[in-house]
Amino acid sequence: MPRCLVVLSGGQDSTTCLYWSLARFGAANVDTVTFDYGQRHRIELDCARAIAALAGVPHTVLPIDTFAALGGNALTESAIAVQAGVEADGLPNTFVPGRNLIFLTFAAALAYRRGITELVTGVAQTDYSGYPDCREATIRALQQALRLGMEWEGTLHTPLMFLSKADTVRLARDLGALPALALSHTCYNGVQPPCGVCPACRLRAQGFTEAGIPDPLLERFGGAAA
Amino acid sequence: MPRCLVVLSGGQDSTTCLYWSLARFGAANVDTVTFDYGQRHRIELDCARAIAALAGVPHTVLPIDTFAALGGNALTESAIAVQAGVEADGLPNTFVPGRNLIFLTFAAALAYRRGITELVTGVAQTDYSGYPDCREATIRALQQALRLGMEWEGTLHTPLMFLSKADTVRLARDLGALPALALSHTCYNGVQPPCGVCPACRLRAQGFTEAGIPDPLLERFGGAAA
Repeated sequence: MPRCLVVLSGGQDSTTCLYWSLARFGAANVDTVTFDYGQRHRIELDCARAIAALAGVPHTVLPIDTFAALGGNALTESAIAVQAGVEADGLPNTFVPGRNLIFLTFAAALAYRRGITELVTGVAQTDYSGYPDCREATIRALQQALRLGMEWEGTLHTPLMFLSKADTVRLARDLGALPALALSHTCYNGVQPPCGVCPACRLRAQGFTEAGIPDPLLERFGGAAA
Repeated sequence: MPRCLVVLSGGQDSTTCLYWSLARFGAANVDTVTFDYGQRHRIELDCARAIAALAGVPHTVLPIDTFAALGGNALTESAIAVQAGVEADGLPNTFVPGRNLIFLTFAAALAYRRGITELVTGVAQTDYSGYPDCREATIRALQQALRLGMEWEGTLHTPLMFLSKADTVRLARDLGALPALALSHTCYNGVQPPCGVCPACRLRAQGFTEAGIPDPLLERFGGAAA
């Protein structure tokens, strides 16, 4: 069985992908990596650590200080408020140009170092929120660049690419990922219990509602958002 | 005239590309970026700064702390000696997997932020020293990933891709880049005057010898390597 590396953000989608990987490759063949890129909410890193520990898999945190230096985005600059809307260019103002390209390239470099060929990421085209680096065509082009540029016989797996949020919730349930989702983080405002009103909280709630499954994160805090 | 961003390492090839860009796009449309990725030889950053100043163009240094965390390579770990040979896998032991992919993706993100569409890099397939991320096919695949992933209507220019080192030296002379090359850095051992015996020094010397042009860097130090 080949070994895999899961890009684990501590969020709902990557947590589901971790459990997909456990089922697909076996726990002994699963490794995880989280990027500390200066995100405003350090809670994401704590969630990723706790989820990897719950799943019993190794976990590496890699720093990336470049996004903060590039500047001008809401996820790394605390002075910029996260808004529910989008910027003038039509992209959410949490957009960091090329963020997923960078994450996946560094993850592939780590995989290369460790002799791992299977890379798993939770990007989804269905609910991609305007991020062009989450689309299938982008991932396929990047896979080609990584294979050529690193002489790496690897594959980028995107198990959630064409699933709706409700489909992802049902998949998580079927994979036994709900206890881990109780430890995951989604809220753009970085609070626990989650704020319930930011776009990320609302998208998450909609998925659980449509799937008819209670969100274990909300149950952990008494069954409702703050 | 479109604006361009040159990835300037402080070495011979990227310096030549800077002067190619001055000729192609005009000095007022040229911007430069250098990556501080924990390279052992801080002199590279000083050289890049001096060359950008000589050319009279803006210069940005972007930090990348991730390569050092990835570990295991000679260019960021001072405990690993640089050898003249190659490692067991056939790649030079200065190889950082995906290094150019990362540089170009961050450069594209900076270009995107600044409304720049033309990205210039000194990679060359001819003398690529075993680096698969310097090849034409890799660059074209990456360009596609960047265009799709950032919705960026950009182009990666590689003016040296199919030139020999001697061709590059002649191009530098024709572009008036020799005074800037006197400020450039090539030596893997990070010394000035250059050591003259490492693979990088020898490749550089061979190019100037074949072109029949004295190396202005050596002339600056009295006409010979240390």
